[in-house]
Amino acid sequence: MKILVVNCGSSSIKYQLYAMPQREVLAKGQAERIGEPGAVLSGQADGRTFRLEAAIADHEEGMRLILQGLTGDDERALHDPREIVAVGHRVVHGGEEFSGSVAIDDRVLASIERCADLAPLHNPANLTGIRAAMHALPSAMHVACFDTAFHATIPPVAYLYALPYAVYTNFGVRRYGFHGSSHRYVAGRTAVLLGRDRHETNCITVHLGNGCSITAVHQGRSVDTSMGLTPLEGLVMGTRSGDIDPAILFYLADKGYDLASLNRLCNKESGLLGVSGVSNDMRTVTEAADGGHARAALAVDVFCYRVRKYIGAYLAVLGHVDAISFTGGIGERACGVRARICQGLEPLGIELDSARNAQATGGEATISRPASRVRVLVVPTDEEGVIAADTYQLVEEGRRRDGQQQLSGAHGP
Amino acid sequence: MKILVVNCGSSSIKYQLYAMPQREVLAKGQAERIGEPGAVLSGQADGRTFRLEAAIADHEEGMRLILQGLTGDDERALHDPREIVAVGHRVVHGGEEFSGSVAIDDRVLASIERCADLAPLHNPANLTGIRAAMHALPSAMHVACFDTAFHATIPPVAYLYALPYAVYTNFGVRRYGFHGSSHRYVAGRTAVLLGRDRHETNCITVHLGNGCSITAVHQGRSVDTSMGLTPLEGLVMGTRSGDIDPAILFYLADKGYDLASLNRLCNKESGLLGVSGVSNDMRTVTEAADGGHARAALAVDVFCYRVRKYIGAYLAVLGHVDAISFTGGIGERACGVRARICQGLEPLGIELDSARNAQATGGEATISRPASRVRVLVVPTDEEGVIAADTYQLVEEGRRRDGQQQLSGAHGP
Repeated sequence: MKILVVNCGSSSIKYQLYAMPQREVLAKGQAERIGEPGAVLSGQADGRTFRLEAAIADHEEGMRLILQGLTGDDERALHDPREIVAVGHRVVHGGEEFSGSVAIDDRVLASIERCADLAPLHNPANLTGIRAAMHALPSAMHVACFDTAFHATIPPVAYLYALPYAVYTNFGVRRYGFHGSSHRYVAGRTAVLLGRDRHETNCITVHLGNGCSITAVHQGRSVDTSMGLTPLEGLVMGTRSGDIDPAILFYLADKGYDLASLNRLCNKESGLLGVSGVSNDMRTVTEAADGGHARAALAVDVFCYRVRKYIGAYLAVLGHVDAISFTGGIGERACGVRARICQGLEPLGIELDSARNAQATGGEATISRPASRVRVLVVPTDEEGVIAADTYQLVEEGRRRDGQQQLSGAHGP
Repeated sequence: MKILVVNCGSSSIKYQLYAMPQREVLAKGQAERIGEPGAVLSGQADGRTFRLEAAIADHEEGMRLILQGLTGDDERALHDPREIVAVGHRVVHGGEEFSGSVAIDDRVLASIERCADLAPLHNPANLTGIRAAMHALPSAMHVACFDTAFHATIPPVAYLYALPYAVYTNFGVRRYGFHGSSHRYVAGRTAVLLGRDRHETNCITVHLGNGCSITAVHQGRSVDTSMGLTPLEGLVMGTRSGDIDPAILFYLADKGYDLASLNRLCNKESGLLGVSGVSNDMRTVTEAADGGHARAALAVDVFCYRVRKYIGAYLAVLGHVDAISFTGGIGERACGVRARICQGLEPLGIELDSARNAQATGGEATISRPASRVRVLVVPTDEEGVIAADTYQLVEEGRRRDGQQQLSGAHGP
């Protein structure tokens, strides 16, 4: 069964075409700078890479070009776009309405629209992509997979801010959390690697990419996570500050900053970039630090220190922890960052094996010592695979339901 | 030696008169609603309490009335105000300029004035009090003791926010921390109670009053604390939110809140009061919770959960921890709150003894089980005593210096 996974930004469409249930990636690529000068479609299929510069007016045209590129009588992934049985769409914010992936209908579209208020930069773009794909593939099933869904199990004590309660009831201000597909996938793989049932496994999943978040997983369910109402809260990221004293904003407003500048400051000019002054990319910042750049070294230290504090906090939340799993571009590859994060955590039962850690730069691996009370793992994430799997499952469930209805229709009164 | 300790707010003067070095409190009281209708001077001396309603125009007049009340030919604390050798002043913000208590001269006054930018509600009031006291007691030594000073040892990795570095260098935006005298006193007493040298003791001091903060103390020195640029950050407090996603402020601004309302919201309408809707007072909120008030119970849970997370974070910061010490009105008396905070921390070596915990409601006590890897203590704080001791020490040092100068003057060339 062929399933297309789509992730739409305001001027981009990323896609992966899967053969399911084997999770084989047949093709992947992206349309970028949609509606802007210099639009480009690029990707890989059948071991070939391609790159096509062409004006792409809007997401509808982008989707049409993507399907065109996938289809042909030669060795291409599709002979006919109608082979795509279903499309899984990444949607950033599901608010309190969605605790799992769902088949998209008018009611779901309306709900995603309502949640746009909580993610004004992301949900509208996701919706544009969904509509373009529904138009291009009208007979396929379309499924929405939410970044927030895995965190729907977080209890009130962890999702409620200590603000006036009406701010929650009137405006939906609470912790939602993001990177849900990644944390869910990694928590699942962690249980498999430990040889345990996921519903009997406590772990801390540490997603360190350009965005960074960390989740406390209790018996397979998210019970706390560092991102909050928005993806700004929590860990230090490429350009985001993560946690700050909220009164800093009042203080800087007194100094003449307006709210738009403060928003930009915290989201676009902070994090690794802001502290180091060098780059938002951990590789570049680490190289600069190794070359003696003091502020780059400080940025790496501040980044790692924040993760270490959250690991401690989630140890306290979970009590017993079986494993800590690193994922995301930095988490999977930057062994120096992992080492720095875990430094000094030995009294808490977290003992890294420096040789194993240095060797783990891509695949799944255990990087703790055999004696370490808490296993430390590297688990490359697979957010698209999760979306493909959820979509496949919803198609199969639909088919089973249809089959049962036909069956009961044939044998019923 | 008689030493007066003074803590000035914008419309109040709190004082305690000490006999040093024995730290005996001879009298204490406060002038309130200075410059407002219904001003009142009240307090205790020689076992008597008094209360005097009188117009108090300004802090100068308040200070004069206080000294008048302390002085008399009967059994009062002073025969003559000139018996007061020194005055210790509580000053909220010492910025990066002060890492300890200092004798006040013109240079120090100018520095405190510069720091007023960081604590616009507190430092100007503290300055007014200092000037009034210097005017009333011109021959006494005046000493400034800063709430921030104990935290001067926090390293850059913990004091730096992940904001653009220029925000630190241009505007002094960094973690300063508060409640320093309390954390320092409690860390010191903790070492004494453990029978250890304070410079070999790691502890977490948990100050829970109307304001709440928690400090990681490494070998006697503060290395991290939950309050930041301002006292808003960190734990849930009576009316303060503590940590929130900073983007909540951008989101609520979009909903029509202006910055002044948001500042009031976070500082005056949040915390226990905001979540419970009942009160900012833990006793009242706990009673309501015990009576079945769901949101009051939620407020207590959110309060305790936040403390638990910080304890975990500081375990990760310190690695090895000898003791956790509770202080402040809530920390010293609310055994139920302490129990809830420590619940589930057993795997981290923190085991409360429920009988001992229930009995500890005022004095110093160990409330952990003998087998607990980390000792848990209750240590009533004594911020005024710290100020009196610092002031006494500076007087003594000054006298020794004067003595040496006279000596070297007598024997020199």
